[in-house]
Amino acid sequence: MEPSPQPRPARSRTQRYDPHSLLDVAVRVFTERGYDGTSMEHLAKAAGITKSSFYHHVDGKEELLRRSLERAMDGLFAVLDEEQSQRGRAIARLEHVMRRSVDLLIREQPHVTLLLRVRGNNDVERHALERRREFQRAVTKLVLQAEEEGDLVPTKDARLTGRLLFGMINSMVEWYHPGGGLSARALGDAVVQVCLDGLRPRT
Amino acid sequence: MEPSPQPRPARSRTQRYDPHSLLDVAVRVFTERGYDGTSMEHLAKAAGITKSSFYHHVDGKEELLRRSLERAMDGLFAVLDEEQSQRGRAIARLEHVMRRSVDLLIREQPHVTLLLRVRGNNDVERHALERRREFQRAVTKLVLQAEEEGDLVPTKDARLTGRLLFGMINSMVEWYHPGGGLSARALGDAVVQVCLDGLRPRT
Repeated sequence: MEPSPQPRPARSRTQRYDPHSLLDVAVRVFTERGYDGTSMEHLAKAAGITKSSFYHHVDGKEELLRRSLERAMDGLFAVLDEEQSQRGRAIARLEHVMRRSVDLLIREQPHVTLLLRVRGNNDVERHALERRREFQRAVTKLVLQAEEEGDLVPTKDARLTGRLLFGMINSMVEWYHPGGGLSARALGDAVVQVCLDGLRPRT
Repeated sequence: MEPSPQPRPARSRTQRYDPHSLLDVAVRVFTERGYDGTSMEHLAKAAGITKSSFYHHVDGKEELLRRSLERAMDGLFAVLDEEQSQRGRAIARLEHVMRRSVDLLIREQPHVTLLLRVRGNNDVERHALERRREFQRAVTKLVLQAEEEGDLVPTKDARLTGRLLFGMINSMVEWYHPGGGLSARALGDAVVQVCLDGLRPRT
């Protein structure tokens, strides 16, 4: 946890900013305008504070990008570290990783959305892309292992299969609305039903 | 087809532009910078011509956005109009629409990529989003009908199922490279294997 900021005069009666809420503002602006198209002026304006107040809290926009992408990636790697992702048959571990990634996506939607838009335009973005590839390699390994254990049909290309599974999961950021009545559990069930069980009846 | 442009002095020995190639340049710049962050100056610079030469060919950047999004959406609706999407059992029609959408995505990747990034920031984008929703409604209808015909297991939410299917398909724009050795056929097979047949062995 970061230390609480010192109390200071707020710019409006309703809003007080600390590094956490500034991160939320920044992620929203980055997602709307693109990181490269966002200046500190844009961020300060969106937060309703002066640019110098903004610099009181953060070194610059790159720090905010880094913190947002780390939050999303740390969440994904924490999923891989969970006991149910580490022990047991690969099919059960894969299903666990898929369901918990859906949970994370819903819990951290703004940060995951930003992560998925990253194109590698600077060092922070390139580092995040490298970690995404590392995550994807762990998924490919689970797919291959589940195939070897006979719990998944052999696919021609386990890397492609892993990409398709997470392509489906990641696509949820585009339309998911927290108030829309779909729980993480229902979304996880739907992904598992489509991808693992398949939609054709099993006779 | 649009009429061929009049011959005119080229700005370089290697590049001559017409409305089609300017569209390709514009789509690349829109995708990199975001449409809102792109000016006519950016487009002219990327094309290596003057702004006034650019205006000789197109009314403005909105025209290029409209033409790109129309190209992607017209392609999708053409898929729905194909005979194999119109006749026969719903499961076969759904599979056809999925495979042909993969074909389109690969053939028109830059335009489909732009379409998928659209957020409804102007009338052209809102119109494209409305057409995407219309396409998605047609998919939902096919899923429902295939469930009613007993060729797909009943899902709790056919709209969600359709979104997941096309979420997977659309996610390919993020990583597909034309020279990567994966054919449209192989990608279509993989999507059908994962989503319709499911990855768990059928005993």
